[in-house]
Amino acid sequence: MYQRLDIKTGKSTIFTVMITINIIGTGNLAWHLATNFATSPSIKLQQLASRSPKNQEDFLTSFEEVTTIDKLRSATITIIAVTDNAIAQVATQIPYRDSLVVHTSGSISIDAIQAKRKGVFYPLQSFSKNDTVDFLTIPICLEATTQEDIAILQTVATSLSTIIYQLNSAQRKKAHLAAVFANNFTNHCYTIAQEICKKEDIPFELLHALIEKTAQKAITSSPSEVQTGPAKRNDTSVITTHQDMLQDEDHTSIYNTLTASIISHYGKKL
Amino acid sequence: MYQRLDIKTGKSTIFTVMITINIIGTGNLAWHLATNFATSPSIKLQQLASRSPKNQEDFLTSFEEVTTIDKLRSATITIIAVTDNAIAQVATQIPYRDSLVVHTSGSISIDAIQAKRKGVFYPLQSFSKNDTVDFLTIPICLEATTQEDIAILQTVATSLSTIIYQLNSAQRKKAHLAAVFANNFTNHCYTIAQEICKKEDIPFELLHALIEKTAQKAITSSPSEVQTGPAKRNDTSVITTHQDMLQDEDHTSIYNTLTASIISHYGKKL
Repeated sequence: MYQRLDIKTGKSTIFTVMITINIIGTGNLAWHLATNFATSPSIKLQQLASRSPKNQEDFLTSFEEVTTIDKLRSATITIIAVTDNAIAQVATQIPYRDSLVVHTSGSISIDAIQAKRKGVFYPLQSFSKNDTVDFLTIPICLEATTQEDIAILQTVATSLSTIIYQLNSAQRKKAHLAAVFANNFTNHCYTIAQEICKKEDIPFELLHALIEKTAQKAITSSPSEVQTGPAKRNDTSVITTHQDMLQDEDHTSIYNTLTASIISHYGKKL
Repeated sequence: MYQRLDIKTGKSTIFTVMITINIIGTGNLAWHLATNFATSPSIKLQQLASRSPKNQEDFLTSFEEVTTIDKLRSATITIIAVTDNAIAQVATQIPYRDSLVVHTSGSISIDAIQAKRKGVFYPLQSFSKNDTVDFLTIPICLEATTQEDIAILQTVATSLSTIIYQLNSAQRKKAHLAAVFANNFTNHCYTIAQEICKKEDIPFELLHALIEKTAQKAITSSPSEVQTGPAKRNDTSVITTHQDMLQDEDHTSIYNTLTASIISHYGKKL
């Protein structure tokens, strides 16, 4: 929705406009975005462009046209949903300069886009293939250089999610770094837990309730307030037993690094 | 419930018996166990004994009597719910030798208990103070030296949970080690993520959906199949940017250790 001021009468009118979207990219995020935008009555998916034509079949029904970057026509927003390293180059190939171009990356600056009207539309979630994604609860981090463009991005974001943040490039990069700890690193810890279980014929399901509860507690409390375990208690006897049990060099190295950090973190607090 | 065989007729009868329980210890786990046992019609909480009398008030209504270890009377099961280091010593103080004595630790062997009938009753969950605990979905790991004692432990476990595993001491220790990765280490990663957010005035709520989804995916898929992020892609450009942003020595050390492990893990797979 936009608010338009009538200069003659001084009255403002709220009205709905159709937002046209071009998407560049055919990866997981492009697919999830297209699928969800397709259900919004105020959004029209105009063109899809990709660098490689091989993954375009899945998108055919959602867009008016599937094409190449050089054949894109101006839209309200052009969303670049390609790998971080390709963003800058893809942006230069867009054949119009009159409308808003955004990327979707957590770690790339808004300035990677060489365009007059540029922005960032970063949904903070880990998108896997074949995953069902309910955008409603996925935070979307927005950045633009003018309030008008922020308003457009907010309209688009609102069509997907109820959680919208405005972050500048420095904040977004830090949020992405924090997300690496909260997602990438925790998931790798789950993977190691699963490997340990597998070696002893212990079903990984044994840990499901613990994994779920740990995440829930971090959300409802502050994670530092619910830390438990041998490192938190500085229980050297259990820690030594664990170190003796570990057979993989990487597992040992992670165990020691995290244990030392927890001991130091909570030792300081005492 | 027990199954009793009548030797004369050869018929077996299933009947319910009242199980009496003594608990030694007044910590979080003792409290959660007592609170949940108190609602079971087939369990009678007989005596609570503790090493220090200061924390007994909360338990007064659940037990017939609150006393000291030397005044305990024999019960169907005596549950030692004290810190790992104190289990062996507490077990020797129990003034009867005719009934089942169990501890509740993940990392201590069944043999820490010097008793004829000994066992382990280990609920695999992280118990925090003032936390509401729904035992129904908490896996309980059982160990005993006879089938009769396993049957008793199963009856007690069934009164709390629907997820019951029989693990030997070696398996339980490995399950506990896996739980350290799945709970203690993931929670510390959440803590660091929160610290990074705090420094940049980014609300930690921004990461809630990600934390929840990461845990859900690990449960519904295999965590190694849903790993994402710069380390998984071996994206050295983003990794270097992250390393430059990290200001805390511990954070850097954890970032580098986990990143190296993820690169090595998925590099091997390619």
